[in-house]
Amino acid sequence: MKRPLTPLDFVRRAIKLYPERTAILHGELRYSYRQWGERLWRLAHALRGAGIRPGDHVAVLSPNTHQGLLSYSAVPWAGAVLVPLNTRLTAPEYAFQLEFADVKLLLCDASLLGRAQEVAAALGIEVWVMGDEVAGQDFETRLREAAGDPLPFPLDLDEDSPITINFTSGTTSSPKGVMLTHRNAYMDGVGVLLYMNVTQDSVYLHTLPNFHVNGWGGVWAMQGVGAANVMLPVVRADTIYGAVERHGVTHMCAAPTVLSMLTDPASARSVPPILVATAGSPPHARIITDMDRLGFTVLQVYGLSETSPLITVAELSAEQEALPIAERAVLIARQGFEMVNAGEVEVMDTDMRPVPHDGSTLGEIMVQSNHVMLGYYKNPQATAEAFAGGWFHTGDMGCVHPDGRIEIRDRNKDVIISGGENISSVEVEGVLYRHPAVREAVVVAMPHDTWGEVGCAFVALHAGHEVTSEELTAFAREHLAGFKVPKRFEYLEDLPKTASGKFQKFVLRDTLWEGQARGVN
Amino acid sequence: MKRPLTPLDFVRRAIKLYPERTAILHGELRYSYRQWGERLWRLAHALRGAGIRPGDHVAVLSPNTHQGLLSYSAVPWAGAVLVPLNTRLTAPEYAFQLEFADVKLLLCDASLLGRAQEVAAALGIEVWVMGDEVAGQDFETRLREAAGDPLPFPLDLDEDSPITINFTSGTTSSPKGVMLTHRNAYMDGVGVLLYMNVTQDSVYLHTLPNFHVNGWGGVWAMQGVGAANVMLPVVRADTIYGAVERHGVTHMCAAPTVLSMLTDPASARSVPPILVATAGSPPHARIITDMDRLGFTVLQVYGLSETSPLITVAELSAEQEALPIAERAVLIARQGFEMVNAGEVEVMDTDMRPVPHDGSTLGEIMVQSNHVMLGYYKNPQATAEAFAGGWFHTGDMGCVHPDGRIEIRDRNKDVIISGGENISSVEVEGVLYRHPAVREAVVVAMPHDTWGEVGCAFVALHAGHEVTSEELTAFAREHLAGFKVPKRFEYLEDLPKTASGKFQKFVLRDTLWEGQARGVN
Repeated sequence: MKRPLTPLDFVRRAIKLYPERTAILHGELRYSYRQWGERLWRLAHALRGAGIRPGDHVAVLSPNTHQGLLSYSAVPWAGAVLVPLNTRLTAPEYAFQLEFADVKLLLCDASLLGRAQEVAAALGIEVWVMGDEVAGQDFETRLREAAGDPLPFPLDLDEDSPITINFTSGTTSSPKGVMLTHRNAYMDGVGVLLYMNVTQDSVYLHTLPNFHVNGWGGVWAMQGVGAANVMLPVVRADTIYGAVERHGVTHMCAAPTVLSMLTDPASARSVPPILVATAGSPPHARIITDMDRLGFTVLQVYGLSETSPLITVAELSAEQEALPIAERAVLIARQGFEMVNAGEVEVMDTDMRPVPHDGSTLGEIMVQSNHVMLGYYKNPQATAEAFAGGWFHTGDMGCVHPDGRIEIRDRNKDVIISGGENISSVEVEGVLYRHPAVREAVVVAMPHDTWGEVGCAFVALHAGHEVTSEELTAFAREHLAGFKVPKRFEYLEDLPKTASGKFQKFVLRDTLWEGQARGVN
Repeated sequence: MKRPLTPLDFVRRAIKLYPERTAILHGELRYSYRQWGERLWRLAHALRGAGIRPGDHVAVLSPNTHQGLLSYSAVPWAGAVLVPLNTRLTAPEYAFQLEFADVKLLLCDASLLGRAQEVAAALGIEVWVMGDEVAGQDFETRLREAAGDPLPFPLDLDEDSPITINFTSGTTSSPKGVMLTHRNAYMDGVGVLLYMNVTQDSVYLHTLPNFHVNGWGGVWAMQGVGAANVMLPVVRADTIYGAVERHGVTHMCAAPTVLSMLTDPASARSVPPILVATAGSPPHARIITDMDRLGFTVLQVYGLSETSPLITVAELSAEQEALPIAERAVLIARQGFEMVNAGEVEVMDTDMRPVPHDGSTLGEIMVQSNHVMLGYYKNPQATAEAFAGGWFHTGDMGCVHPDGRIEIRDRNKDVIISGGENISSVEVEGVLYRHPAVREAVVVAMPHDTWGEVGCAFVALHAGHEVTSEELTAFAREHLAGFKVPKRFEYLEDLPKTASGKFQKFVLRDTLWEGQARGVN
């Protein structure tokens, strides 16, 4: 007997089995799963009533609100495909994505209306405004006026049809529309449940922007077991610590930059045990150590938009769990092993042969998995390139340690090639992070007459700390070969990041290459 | 990107990621996952070399040995379908099953050769003999002579093709061949991993006969995370406690009759924390309480051969976990909730409408799930009946409590109809189990001139205990309405059971209905 694999089954289960438990906590507002279910049916009915047909595309532009979260379930339940939009883009970028993705309707949070309303109007796209009681008349009125009777689980759904189209998050300048299927999202959800150990008693804080690969699956998976979802529209250390204390948070997901924010001495607090899954860029061992001391257990996972996203986990054996945190942190900082639900993850050379497990030979991380997207929307060429040889090419360069752990050494294009030697920017950054004054560090390639490229470091310091370029150079020399030591240090208040907290290396690199072409290696 | 859902991916992962960890412990013998992988390739190569082709059927007849376990992975890896045979059948029964299932090759443990060799020969079926070093020449020689090079993961496998054909276990007299697909078995494995929390440090004791619905998924799932498999060919309280002490067992699966054996005062011992999943028939609250006191945490799961098998779990909230064991045991004794990976489980009336959640209205448990078999082998009519209305009909009668917990009240045919009232044999047995002298209890329908049917109890007592029928009648009257109290008590040394430890109620019932027809209601 076939039943479509879809994360909608997680949501259905919570509404059926946990009707009186808390589904949503958002400020003063609380919805039980019974109420959540009724809102879900209402939105799905409203969408159908407004002429949304199976296969239509509906975009959502919202911070982590309960209304935004609802769209991840109600839009596909109505048979449509959700297009989550990044909240930090400009009007022309929204115009491009709305048009490119053939969006029929935009669900837009009131706070972001200014940037999207005009472009939507120009494209003839209807906008429903979500927000608080006053601003949200449009959306809430439609819900109130729609039928609240349950829609049956869509047994006839094609599990290989898209549930979302997620634009890549912008570490490169050309976003592509990643089509994730119901089956992709379901299998990712299985991994979240397996490795995060959420239960009906868990309280999950939505720190990670949900438009970022569907909150790594968190927009659905937590509902599978009836956990509570704490919505957090504004992500700062004080709002996170505030929510933790107020709601008894047990689980969260966050990019390493958010961990760095939480461990900044100016805001750090001790917490009851909280599991934090982190991904997006490799977290440095020092941050893991600092988090551990505060009470957070860091679980490093790894993936990309194209892999739904989570495919590896830095799992530890019982023996490794017993190591002192400094030793554990080194292991946790590696991307680890393919998840049991995620198919195969391999590091392969250009001939697609696995690299030796020597902890140094670089290869490209490739994936053969039910987590891998259907393809890029309206871009068959990019799809074919990404799937060459029957494996998905991540573009991430890594090595494999003797124990089988995969470690990312760099994005393909972030490797610095200096006098023919490859320098891993991640390795150099890891050393800079060990300096007590350094809060954030990014190392990128800079043009150099003799060596072709050398490293340039951009650093942001902890409040009240100072350190000179000479001191940082000397510090780096103690831990790195001379050619790897950055030849220039730049100090910034904050480093540029994407909305999901990844450093935008290309922005920094562009400042160094003005008027010169840098080939992507 | 599609990758076939198959439990072979679990096995592949263990061989790849945990090569030096222990795969198998069997007496003095230990195989690492590296060695296990090599044996797997050797057996798969040997099968292909012997002319086994994709889609061919290979039977295995073996107690829980490492060689038997190997066949669950190597036979499907060679592209064939495994037919696990019950170890307690007679030669004519083996003849029927081997012929009916179109078996080409039989892998037979030396200890069981006497019952199967002749019938296999008569059917022209080749036999490979498995066993210890001396007896196992045949099988081990073939492995030694076969190539040991890895066979690639079968990416072109059809996930909806059968991986096994499991004969129903014989609580009824007409066994049917249940075709379980790779996808069925994979999804069941996901449930095992989610709810049993096995890790690479777990030590799983194979107490449950693996021919019984593929050890409830245990023949593959434990390998997904690199856990150790302790093989146990002979299942007695002393061999179980012996293995627990010797190997540091952390997880096991067992039918309630095995729990009863472990809690018998004559053999009971205290153990370090062990998770025991139990299913096969509803465990009674007293046994759960006794197990808990010894150090075993009982996780009740429920399912049938046709559902791969595990579809519900008696999960508790944190608040319920904190209850005294007597109260907890009542909740654990119920079958509970559909697993998050198992689709929908409903209790429905004859018009296929869900019954009210009142803890009393009986309906049939039905399932819509990726766990549900492809169908009965060469029995389209039985398949069509079982799938009527798009749901799989379990034949189990249950109710739903106000909190959504499903509780089995009886197999359809085990309900006793007395003067028009339905009596749940399970409910009456639960009361008898509360009497300190009672080790095992089964209640079945007995013909009665006035009431049509009344209950007759068969009981086995704990060593050194005595109790009269009058005493048991008085005890039952304290807890049950008069019409539910058994009108006759029979004392046996041991109650008849199937090889997987289920009581054979039909055997006991038949003794009461000689010369009379009893309609199945």
